[in-house]
Amino acid sequence: MGKPFWIKHAAQLVTLAYKSPGPRVKEAMSELAIIEDGSVWLEDGVIQAIGTTTELAIHYADRATEADVIDATGHLVTPGLVDPHTHLAFGGSREREFEMRLEGATYMDIMNAGGGIHATTRMTREATEDELVQQSVGRLDSFLAHGVTTVEGKSGYGLDLETELKQLRVMKRLQAEHPIDIVPTFMGAHAVPTEYKGHEEEYVDLIIKEMLPIVAREKLAQFNDVFCEVGVFTPEQSERILEAGKLYGLTPKIHADEIEPYQGAELAAKVGAISAEHLLKATDEGIQAMAEQGVIACLLPATALYLRETAARGRAMIDAGVPVAISTDCNPGSSPTTSMPLVMNLACISMRLTPAESLCAATYNAACAIQMEDKVGSLEVGKQADIVLWNVRNYQELQYLFGVNHVKCVWKKGTKVIG
Amino acid sequence: MGKPFWIKHAAQLVTLAYKSPGPRVKEAMSELAIIEDGSVWLEDGVIQAIGTTTELAIHYADRATEADVIDATGHLVTPGLVDPHTHLAFGGSREREFEMRLEGATYMDIMNAGGGIHATTRMTREATEDELVQQSVGRLDSFLAHGVTTVEGKSGYGLDLETELKQLRVMKRLQAEHPIDIVPTFMGAHAVPTEYKGHEEEYVDLIIKEMLPIVAREKLAQFNDVFCEVGVFTPEQSERILEAGKLYGLTPKIHADEIEPYQGAELAAKVGAISAEHLLKATDEGIQAMAEQGVIACLLPATALYLRETAARGRAMIDAGVPVAISTDCNPGSSPTTSMPLVMNLACISMRLTPAESLCAATYNAACAIQMEDKVGSLEVGKQADIVLWNVRNYQELQYLFGVNHVKCVWKKGTKVIG
Ligand SMILES: [Zn+2]
Ligand SMILES: [Zn+2]
Repeated sequence: MGKPFWIKHAAQLVTLAYKSPGPRVKEAMSELAIIEDGSVWLEDGVIQAIGTTTELAIHYADRATEADVIDATGHLVTPGLVDPHTHLAFGGSREREFEMRLEGATYMDIMNAGGGIHATTRMTREATEDELVQQSVGRLDSFLAHGVTTVEGKSGYGLDLETELKQLRVMKRLQAEHPIDIVPTFMGAHAVPTEYKGHEEEYVDLIIKEMLPIVAREKLAQFNDVFCEVGVFTPEQSERILEAGKLYGLTPKIHADEIEPYQGAELAAKVGAISAEHLLKATDEGIQAMAEQGVIACLLPATALYLRETAARGRAMIDAGVPVAISTDCNPGSSPTTSMPLVMNLACISMRLTPAESLCAATYNAACAIQMEDKVGSLEVGKQADIVLWNVRNYQELQYLFGVNHVKCVWKKGTKVIG
Repeated sequence: MGKPFWIKHAAQLVTLAYKSPGPRVKEAMSELAIIEDGSVWLEDGVIQAIGTTTELAIHYADRATEADVIDATGHLVTPGLVDPHTHLAFGGSREREFEMRLEGATYMDIMNAGGGIHATTRMTREATEDELVQQSVGRLDSFLAHGVTTVEGKSGYGLDLETELKQLRVMKRLQAEHPIDIVPTFMGAHAVPTEYKGHEEEYVDLIIKEMLPIVAREKLAQFNDVFCEVGVFTPEQSERILEAGKLYGLTPKIHADEIEPYQGAELAAKVGAISAEHLLKATDEGIQAMAEQGVIACLLPATALYLRETAARGRAMIDAGVPVAISTDCNPGSSPTTSMPLVMNLACISMRLTPAESLCAATYNAACAIQMEDKVGSLEVGKQADIVLWNVRNYQELQYLFGVNHVKCVWKKGTKVIG
């Protein structure tokens, strides 16, 4: 496993060590459990010890010379960031469509030029598995450079059995080939493919009767996600798909209330979803239901910015007792970015999270949203040594100096992968 | 001067070569003058030749082996970015105030805790010249890493003769000590210092009678800027200050119509300002007046985002014939960022500039806003070799893949300073 690393003298070592299991709510989101003059010993891929530099110096007095010592004086150190909502394994690029829209093209112009989500579906269907792996590796490298050590990834640009499976297999390969941990989600219900326009129920049946059984049998996904939205999948269809997934052991997630209020948050609570996504138009009742059931709100402020929408009511959700996570929503249509640091900034700027809440939402609560909190999301003995050393002095500065990637070094499972 | 550099095979070499002098308006902002398979020869700090790779290969057939060859296959190459509006030479940091505000502190709480602009004034007065240089170098390094090779910098956190001069001298030292070109602006009229509260006219007199003459005599600034805003300086006071500066050879700039419509754009046209800044609340009449006089609108969409304000009407201004430039507004209160790439993204997302217009606004028109277009802002034979090689394939992708710093290499005056 190579030499151990010994990180010493961190100005702020934000551990986010938790006292009780499960996602954090309210004040607990601000409890960062900071160690000043902090120190971590990484070995065999995990955190072996954590404490003040003085404490670790005593503990490792005999082995001090074995380690690769990192002097973090004046620097912030945190857990690796976790991105709990991405669509990363897609084909092609849509920068020309972005330009056309800004040059005044209408929605119909774009569609006639072969644009929109169906363009990505077409390019994802056409791409070979190798091509999708290659394109996704580029995105994962960028995630890593931005301090992200774990990402969730969704299928949903295939919209047919073959391509959905291809996207999921691409993610399985990426998990084996790239340092970043990838948690796969099946999202056959991301859109209704053009060939099922007008007979959407048949597509729902296809998902339930053909796609879900194979995805489950091949163990290609851990979660099952649905785009519940006016003109996409109704709450009834969404519920059928999510309940069917549960029978196969897939935990529900739901793209909810993004464009119109549509009972998405309520449905998330009803089906016991681990998380509900977007929630720009979630109602007070929906937020209340999520708080009662402990459904994590996975909020995507970069998407809101890109679409020029008002961001989700993150402040109100935390105050109502909803556990909040944040994510890039990395995708080629509404959020072509890999910057979780920017998402943290936007969580403060646009959603009025405090700097501490924003960091918790991008680490520990994000890990909970993909059921990875036993391994990642906080710095504790025995957990994966996924760690970021930042070019700022404290967590407040990380959120305040916005739009800049402050990453200096990243360790993944104890290996230095950036810096 | 070291070895020449020969950049070859750029997928898109955006030259922005201009046909007529002065800032660009309307369709001219979209004329990027792109060379495919583009090539540049840099030597003695300037661009010696520019064309296709084939053309330069013929021209430099005898000298090909002398150069440090950069293969830019698959990459975008552009002029170095120009940031025409920053307040970079300030003291201290205000991340704790950012946190307090998000934790619910009121404006008065912040003021009572010694926060706000007067906190920066206090910390700038207390800082030694060396300390200010050191802090500013950190910011300039970050600008350079984001592809910015020329910045404007304003005084205005001194608000007394001694500290205003100190800020300007810091910028003079930075110009000598740092690769980035720094164009200094005197902005004694950035705020009314607390000691002049209630007798603002006396402070205006101090600026006109004491500060401006010394600044001019010591040749410490090229521009004279005023914060014309309700509760700060009136249009009448602003006009007096700007006209006085003109007598000393300082070209007017004006922070105009940021918080309320206040005849700022109109005043900019009236006094013949080179640029007007912010303009969130500029009226149609003000925009028209600026178009007629050719006043450059220097728009600051990162500031609007940070303050949760609706961005300036960039699209409408371009359509009305106003030359538009964009900038970070880097400052510790309302825009603590050094990312011109993010500002370009926001120009598209929030102000509906096209990707081409956004790039022109961040290079050539930005250079015009600080009267540097003879040296920088476009790639032409004889101009400074300030060049950025990007990790994207084309200028559309640069604007589309947002929130990420795509810089791969930067040359300043022909020297490779990044990458
Ligand atoms: Zn999504
Ligand atoms: Zn300013």
